[in-house]
Amino acid sequence: MKAILLLFLLLAGTIATAQTNNTIEKKKFHFGAEQDTSAGYAQAVKVDNVIYVSGTVALDITPASIKRLYQTIERSLAAFGATLQNVVKENLYTTDIEAMKTHNEARKKMYKGDYPAATWVQISRLYMPEAKLEIEVIAHLPKK
Amino acid sequence: MKAILLLFLLLAGTIATAQTNNTIEKKKFHFGAEQDTSAGYAQAVKVDNVIYVSGTVALDITPASIKRLYQTIERSLAAFGATLQNVVKENLYTTDIEAMKTHNEARKKMYKGDYPAATWVQISRLYMPEAKLEIEVIAHLPKK
Amino acid sequence: MKAILLLFLLLAGTIATAQTNNTIEKKKFHFGAEQDTSAGYAQAVKVDNVIYVSGTVALDITPASIKRLYQTIERSLAAFGATLQNVVKENLYTTDIEAMKTHNEARKKMYKGDYPAATWVQISRLYMPEAKLEIEVIAHLPKK
Repeated sequence: MKAILLLFLLLAGTIATAQTNNTIEKKKFHFGAEQDTSAGYAQAVKVDNVIYVSGTVALDITPASIKRLYQTIERSLAAFGATLQNVVKENLYTTDIEAMKTHNEARKKMYKGDYPAATWVQISRLYMPEAKLEIEVIAHLPKK
Repeated sequence: MKAILLLFLLLAGTIATAQTNNTIEKKKFHFGAEQDTSAGYAQAVKVDNVIYVSGTVALDITPASIKRLYQTIERSLAAFGATLQNVVKENLYTTDIEAMKTHNEARKKMYKGDYPAATWVQISRLYMPEAKLEIEVIAHLPKK
Repeated sequence: MKAILLLFLLLAGTIATAQTNNTIEKKKFHFGAEQDTSAGYAQAVKVDNVIYVSGTVALDITPASIKRLYQTIERSLAAFGATLQNVVKENLYTTDIEAMKTHNEARKKMYKGDYPAATWVQISRLYMPEAKLEIEVIAHLPKK
């Protein structure tokens, strides 16, 4: 009886260990901290050779604010040794897609003629009520 | 002449075979079935070491419904031996982002202080007309 | 003094080289060109064994236009030897989710009963003011 209980505990322990072993190694980038514990997110998370960059925000849609937004994305990528060249996918959410189309040259300049796959949608609002533009990207690093 | 035709058929066959060989091995999780053949989707699909979890829905935005939603995501991940620790990216779509901000503590508790990259947007409506919240995640398992 | 300057330039050079080495190899597909340099995107980008397909558009939501949209996605995937079987994730953005639900059979037919993880949201508008439907997918190829 005791032997069966012991065997059970041993097996249970093995299963628990197996699950624990699926923990992954993530590297995070945020501004002046590892992550934002108030809103509960990290500006960028790297796993394997993939970097997921959170929606990065601009309060208005002007060439200057678009440039600043992409510079923030660049800074997030640079933390892992990547640049906008490493971006393969972009999702753009805006409350005013016409304004974004008007100032797209400011965005295109940042990519230096090497564009990712992209989807743009106009939505009702963003996390901050006054924000007008939010862009998230997926970037890949070379495989070791 | 016949030899050329034979060679052509042989090459055509090789190309066709090559395309067939690009089929990938996907593992799916759904509730009580492999997938939902009515709406046409699977709750979660695993390929390589990546798990894509479909938008998971809550009808209202309360601490209890947010907890239930993440428990559904947890269940989807558990089918592949993963937990919320494995989540690297979260996309949150809601009809009421203010309500979600008010009850964000319920969400943060589920991540146990280890947050993914995240993008939140307020949209017009979801698949079910009465749904108010939909969250999708990407999770990675360790590479073998 | 000159030696220190030389050492500095050497180190700076090494860092610059290290950054350059993180450049990734992307393969792009677009219609009749490598990418759309006007809007600034590529219809599909392949990196490693992953294919990111840009939001693909339909101006109205009918069985015929849904079929055409998925055929465009199929064409994008075929450029890399993939089919809809390789799709693991789908994001659908529409201005009229009820219409899309009404004609979902046209979409389901394209997947031939093998469905991806999926998220559908109703948004305010798309890139083209008259567009009603935009679908993006992530597909994986077998690892070599």
